[in-house]
Amino acid sequence: MEFKQVYIPGLAHCSYVIGGRHECIVVDPARDIQQYLDIAASFNLPITSIIETHLHADFISGHMELANRTGATIYITKQAHAAYDHHGLDDGETITIDTLQIKMIDTPGHTPDCAVYVVSDLERGPIPALAFTGDTLLIGDAGRPDLFPDKKYELAADLYGSLRKVETIGDQVEVYPAHGAGSLCGKSLSSKLSSTIGTERLYNQALLIHPRDAFINSFLEGMPEAPDHFSRCSEINRRGPALLSALQQPVGYNPFEFLQLVEAGHLVVDTRDQLPFTAAHIPGAYGLSLKGNYATFSGWVLPPDLPLLLVLEDTEDLSRALRGLRSVGLDNVAGYLEGGMESWAASGLKTARMESISVMELKERLESGELVLVDTRLKSEYDEEHIPQAVHAPAPDLRYRYREWLEGKPVAFICNTGSRSLLAASLMLNLSGRKDVINVIGGTSAWVNAGYPTVKGGE
Amino acid sequence: MEFKQVYIPGLAHCSYVIGGRHECIVVDPARDIQQYLDIAASFNLPITSIIETHLHADFISGHMELANRTGATIYITKQAHAAYDHHGLDDGETITIDTLQIKMIDTPGHTPDCAVYVVSDLERGPIPALAFTGDTLLIGDAGRPDLFPDKKYELAADLYGSLRKVETIGDQVEVYPAHGAGSLCGKSLSSKLSSTIGTERLYNQALLIHPRDAFINSFLEGMPEAPDHFSRCSEINRRGPALLSALQQPVGYNPFEFLQLVEAGHLVVDTRDQLPFTAAHIPGAYGLSLKGNYATFSGWVLPPDLPLLLVLEDTEDLSRALRGLRSVGLDNVAGYLEGGMESWAASGLKTARMESISVMELKERLESGELVLVDTRLKSEYDEEHIPQAVHAPAPDLRYRYREWLEGKPVAFICNTGSRSLLAASLMLNLSGRKDVINVIGGTSAWVNAGYPTVKGGE
Repeated sequence: MEFKQVYIPGLAHCSYVIGGRHECIVVDPARDIQQYLDIAASFNLPITSIIETHLHADFISGHMELANRTGATIYITKQAHAAYDHHGLDDGETITIDTLQIKMIDTPGHTPDCAVYVVSDLERGPIPALAFTGDTLLIGDAGRPDLFPDKKYELAADLYGSLRKVETIGDQVEVYPAHGAGSLCGKSLSSKLSSTIGTERLYNQALLIHPRDAFINSFLEGMPEAPDHFSRCSEINRRGPALLSALQQPVGYNPFEFLQLVEAGHLVVDTRDQLPFTAAHIPGAYGLSLKGNYATFSGWVLPPDLPLLLVLEDTEDLSRALRGLRSVGLDNVAGYLEGGMESWAASGLKTARMESISVMELKERLESGELVLVDTRLKSEYDEEHIPQAVHAPAPDLRYRYREWLEGKPVAFICNTGSRSLLAASLMLNLSGRKDVINVIGGTSAWVNAGYPTVKGGE
Repeated sequence: MEFKQVYIPGLAHCSYVIGGRHECIVVDPARDIQQYLDIAASFNLPITSIIETHLHADFISGHMELANRTGATIYITKQAHAAYDHHGLDDGETITIDTLQIKMIDTPGHTPDCAVYVVSDLERGPIPALAFTGDTLLIGDAGRPDLFPDKKYELAADLYGSLRKVETIGDQVEVYPAHGAGSLCGKSLSSKLSSTIGTERLYNQALLIHPRDAFINSFLEGMPEAPDHFSRCSEINRRGPALLSALQQPVGYNPFEFLQLVEAGHLVVDTRDQLPFTAAHIPGAYGLSLKGNYATFSGWVLPPDLPLLLVLEDTEDLSRALRGLRSVGLDNVAGYLEGGMESWAASGLKTARMESISVMELKERLESGELVLVDTRLKSEYDEEHIPQAVHAPAPDLRYRYREWLEGKPVAFICNTGSRSLLAASLMLNLSGRKDVINVIGGTSAWVNAGYPTVKGGE
């Protein structure tokens, strides 16, 4: 058996290429498919099949892209009601592809269409060797059942039942999930990207909480914030995402053309690091640094219907910036600023700015009561440890919570390193009209490293 | 738990970085340590410990290099009698590093000093989650016990006992071996690079052959040829390999300087592809293409005491060529030909050549009885399927078996793609003095693809 796990940071997404002697299968491909073509080539096997463990909510899947390129058949549960050309599977149905025998089990819970694929390597024998558990069983967790608020109780109950099916497939079975730590598809995922049914049965809380009602309560409580695009992506994946070759190719605009488009309603996404952004950016730009969790936060805060314009540190960043946006379904990118902010500056056009301060200066100004501090990390991070004076507002929430700080002392934003706080600060600057917005560089990590005091628990 | 498997093709070697919350451990590092430093940096954890599962026979380990760079402690069984600064472990001893509890079990067999490290992730619980099985338990196989001919019966018996200890550590335990398919440390390794104790207990022949005598017979029969450097590397690893910074840095020589060194006894290693090599190479050069299993075959056929000189397609290949040689303990590289074969040709100096023929031409010339065909693959590959007229001689054996074809029809060499046959042909050319030596391009793969007849079984 050929086998390779492909990990995509940012989305914390795991996809797989698995092969027999004559062909191979890609499981849960990302939209950027070159990596799978390369791996299949290294195996010297054609890609003949694609398996989707479910309609992914957090990213746009590469199933259409890969099927279009290779002619491979897409397999997905009939429960997904996929609108594209596919082979729909019934609960418990077994398919044999080359030397791989694969049984699909419907495991609704995270989404109504989740499934687990249990694989036997017929070169060795019929007893299952591994399972692609999608977002049903994660390492140390299970996929959150609260993404569809209308039916979250029903889905949490379904998840409890689904996990009962998964835990009996054999202690020796390797578990390969669709996500690792950093994903917002669960609340306590491990950073290790594989495990076994036996180990998960011993130590995974999702398999240990009984009875069902206690499980449901536990899985609907304390979940991380669900990004806005999570509901959107599922439906795009069900219909079948557009092929990348069919999208408009972004073009470079000179500063004056760029400004005209901004004034006509295009939205500026500035992908540069926090320091150059705070020093000077195009008024109205969103600070979405490529250094941060760029794809997820872009999907979260950018309106999907507006045409986007990019500001890049270097034109070489274009493909990475596009890949991130496209991975969360933001396909409408009109172009980028040719020559970057240097050409904008050379043109003499207006720029906006904010202050960047160190944690040492933050401490002094907090002690003298000169500013308000907003911690923009996730609730769980804030609860674990935060600066005593900090109030909590996750970065994306500044889209509406900016109203809480329309007046009064200058507002400083902090996260763990400075990327999420930059986004929050840029939202504040754009929406409130205030000029005295501050980004804390180094973030809470620098605060802790400096030995400054912190507290635990809620606000 | 942080976890990353690092696979090194060619040697088919698996090493690992595993971490807790504050520090991490590297298991069985290769000599090129930058990759581990990069992974540890991505984990944001310092490397504090190094584990050697045994004295590796097939490659020079990076334990000294990494300890020197990081100050990490090297752990190895006391059975290894390591001559460098280390922490020696007793059979059954448990160490706790950060949140990782690690129990070492002596498992002699492949070598007298083999051990298995059973790891519990204390962040989850005390029951073992994974094991670094070194060359004791491989996926689908166990490490060959025949590398030390004097005591191979004793080691095979030891291996049988050692496997009894390993098979009881828990079906749920993930198995992470030191080698995958392509390694000569076993005869039927899987290309999948992880498994579980449960799956191996079901399907690994090494765990299924009983009683002990049947096991011993099976494990001393039909083993692949053991490269010459296998005995040499163990001892270098026991003493502690030289630091790379202490080695002489190879310098570029112009053709006339290069020729002087060749005439003084330096040995030429030509790392270019088969086609340019067959067209023109420096008389006496070994054809060891970087495209083939370069490191293993270099270790196998190059005399360890002679100073080496490199011919490169491009000066950029120097670091890769050096890394391969150093991975098998060939540290004595004096320099390389500046400007490559182009500068040699421009200087007007003498070159040697051989014929390259396609499988179509091979077939015609075999049918008309014009040539002798030598298949230079492993015995197991030859036995599985070969060209009817082919006789068998593994490429490295041409070092002495060239005498079998000193006279008579021209001799053609074939392997699966052309790299091993190139080595064989270059040995023949250098040692026999014959000029009518032929390399078959495309190899047996091309022969099979063309639909030409093959046979199975021994000669």
